[in-house]
Amino acid sequence: MTPLHAIPPITVHVALDARAYDIHIGAGLLAGPGTFGPVANTRARALIVTNATVAPLYAARLRAAVAPHFADVVVCVLPDGEQYKDWPTLNQVFDALLEAQCDRRTTLFALGGGVVGDMTGFAAACYMRGVPFVQVPTTLLAQVDSSVGGKTAINHPLGKNMIGAFYQPRLVVADIDTLRTLPPREVSAGIAEIIKHGAIADPDFFAWLEQHMEGLRALEPGIVADAVRRCCEIKAAVVASDETESGLRAILNFGHTFGHAIESGMGYGAWLHGEAVGAGMVIAADLSRRLGLLDAQDATRIRALCERAGLPVRAPSLPVKRMVALMQVDKKTEAGAVRFVLLDGLGRAVTRGAPADTVDDVLRAHGGT
Amino acid sequence: MTPLHAIPPITVHVALDARAYDIHIGAGLLAGPGTFGPVANTRARALIVTNATVAPLYAARLRAAVAPHFADVVVCVLPDGEQYKDWPTLNQVFDALLEAQCDRRTTLFALGGGVVGDMTGFAAACYMRGVPFVQVPTTLLAQVDSSVGGKTAINHPLGKNMIGAFYQPRLVVADIDTLRTLPPREVSAGIAEIIKHGAIADPDFFAWLEQHMEGLRALEPGIVADAVRRCCEIKAAVVASDETESGLRAILNFGHTFGHAIESGMGYGAWLHGEAVGAGMVIAADLSRRLGLLDAQDATRIRALCERAGLPVRAPSLPVKRMVALMQVDKKTEAGAVRFVLLDGLGRAVTRGAPADTVDDVLRAHGGT
Repeated sequence: MTPLHAIPPITVHVALDARAYDIHIGAGLLAGPGTFGPVANTRARALIVTNATVAPLYAARLRAAVAPHFADVVVCVLPDGEQYKDWPTLNQVFDALLEAQCDRRTTLFALGGGVVGDMTGFAAACYMRGVPFVQVPTTLLAQVDSSVGGKTAINHPLGKNMIGAFYQPRLVVADIDTLRTLPPREVSAGIAEIIKHGAIADPDFFAWLEQHMEGLRALEPGIVADAVRRCCEIKAAVVASDETESGLRAILNFGHTFGHAIESGMGYGAWLHGEAVGAGMVIAADLSRRLGLLDAQDATRIRALCERAGLPVRAPSLPVKRMVALMQVDKKTEAGAVRFVLLDGLGRAVTRGAPADTVDDVLRAHGGT
Repeated sequence: MTPLHAIPPITVHVALDARAYDIHIGAGLLAGPGTFGPVANTRARALIVTNATVAPLYAARLRAAVAPHFADVVVCVLPDGEQYKDWPTLNQVFDALLEAQCDRRTTLFALGGGVVGDMTGFAAACYMRGVPFVQVPTTLLAQVDSSVGGKTAINHPLGKNMIGAFYQPRLVVADIDTLRTLPPREVSAGIAEIIKHGAIADPDFFAWLEQHMEGLRALEPGIVADAVRRCCEIKAAVVASDETESGLRAILNFGHTFGHAIESGMGYGAWLHGEAVGAGMVIAADLSRRLGLLDAQDATRIRALCERAGLPVRAPSLPVKRMVALMQVDKKTEAGAVRFVLLDGLGRAVTRGAPADTVDDVLRAHGGT
C-alpha cells in the first residue's frame, strides 16, 4: 500500500481513454474559484441536481463556484431518499432541463449522495442521448464509491438499480468539508464501502483502518482524505480494467448481493445502503469461511471492524426464502444461479456460486428466519 | 452510385470497431433457419418486443426462427403508435424482463417499425445497464432508416426523442417480405426517408428514384431491395464516421427539424413521422433555395418526388410562431439558435442557422398560419 499521509488536495486519475477523468479530493474545494474551470463552457448552461436536505447546505456555494464558467445555472431540487430513486423523480430532472430549454451542451452537476449521483448520471446519459456531467459527492459513501466509475441507475419496483447506464462523469470533486454536516449513521454507512475496498483488494489498507477507525468516525481531515484517496485509487484501477463489469469489476459488489436483498426486503430507505452492505459483508465473509476460502480469524476481523464502524452485523429478521428470492433478481445472477463475491483470503475477492443449503444456513446464522 | 441490380440477400456492414454489425436485406429472411445464428446464446433468454398490429402477423414466425438459438423466448406486445413511445409503455418491457427474471445475457429483438425499434433499443441500453439487441424492422421506414445507426429514444411531453441513448444493435434483419402487409400510407412514409438519403448524399440515387417511384410504391421486390440497400449503405457510412452526431451525422436530420415541429404541433400520431419528414424536406429545400444554396429546379424536383411518393408537401395549418417555438426545443438547437440541415445543391447537405424572418416566410408559404 502506498503511504497514507498525503496532504489535500489530491488528484486520482481514472484511466479510461476518451472517457478518462480526474477525481479531486480536498478540503474547501466546493468554494474554490478554479475547481470547475476544467469543465467550463460559457456558451452553455449548467443544471445542478440536488436534494431537499443538501440544497440548503451547499447549493448556493456550488452555484457561486459554477456560475462564472457557464452562461446560466439552473437548480433542480429532488426529494431526499432511496425511495425516490425512481422514474417519476428522474423525470423531474428531464422536466427541468426541457422547461429551461437546455440544449445538448448543458452540463449536469450531481450535488449530494449516491442517490443524487446515480440519478443525475443516468439523466445525463439519457438527456438528448447524452450530455456531460460532474459528480460533487457530499456523503462519505458517494466520495469513496458511488461517484467514481460511471455506474448510474434508478430502481424498478422489482429490483434495485435495474435500469441504468455505464456513463462516466467528466470530473469528480470530493470536498471533505461537506462531510461535517453528515449524521453519524451516514458516516458509518460510508465506512462500510471503505472497509469493502480494503477487504477485496488491500489487506494493508484494511489493517490501517483497524488502527484509524476512531479517527475516521470522528472525520479527522487527514484520515478521511487518506481513506477517500485510497478507495478512489482502488476503484479507479478496477474500473479502468473492466469498465462495464464483464469480469473483475464484479468484486466491487462484495457484500452487495446480500445487501441488496436486505435493502429490497425491508423496503428501500429503511436501511441505508451502506448499512445493508455492512451486514452483507459480514454474511459474505462468513459464507467465504464456510466454503473454506477465508480463515475464521479474518472473518472475525471483518465482523469486528464493521461493528466498530457502527454498522449492523446481522440481517434483519426476514424469511430466508424471501432473501434468496430477492437475490435471484440481482444483476449478477446468470440463468437463475446467484454469483457471490467471496473472499479467497483477506484482500483477494473471487466470484462464484455457492450451494443453496450453505446459503440458507449462513442467512439463518445471521438473523434470517 | 454503385449498380442497383443486386439479387437478395444482401449484406451491408456498419463499421464501428467493437460495435460493428451487419445488416441483412432479403426476402424470406425472417423464417430462414440460419438468420439468427450469429447472435445465438443457448444459455440465455430472448425477449421479442413487438406491437399489437405486428404481433399477429410475424411474432410466431420470428419466435420459431429464434427459438433454436436461445434457452427460452418471451414475447412482449406493446400498443401500436407513436403516442405510446413514452415511459409507461417502455416500462412494460422492463416489467416483462423482470417478471421473467431475465439476466443480463438476455437478447432483445425489436419486431416492428421505428417506434418498436427505438423503444426496444433504449430498453436494451438501460436494462441492467445494457443487454444485446437485434433489429427486425417490418416497415419500410425502419428498414431504410431507423433500425440502422443505434439511435434509440422515447418521447417526453415537451419534445420528441428527448430521452434516449446511442446504442448499437448486434444485427439488423430487414425481410422485405414483411412490407407486403404495410398500408400504402406507411409505404409512402418510408419512401420519405429514402428520398432523404438521395437528397443529402447521392444525386444519382435521387435520379434513380425519379425513374422507379411507381415500382417502389408497388413494392416490386428488386426495386425495394435495391432502395433499402442503398439507404443502408449511405447511412452506414455516415454513422461510421460520426456515431454520436458530433458533426456529419446531423445531415441525416434533413427535413426533420420542420418535421418534428409538425409532428409535435399536431400531437404525436396524427401525422406519420415519414409524412412530417416529407413536408419538412419540401420546406427545408425551399429554405435552401431562399438562402441561395439550392437551384429552384432542384427544389421543385424534391417537391415533385415527394408528391409522387404520396407524401404531404405542405405543413398543416399551425401557427408559425408555435412551429418555431417547437423547433427551439429540438436537439439540434444550440443556445436557442435552431440549426437547419439544408441542401447546398442536390446531394450535398450542410448544417447552419437561418434568419428568423426567412424561416417565418418559408413556413407561411407552405401552409403555416
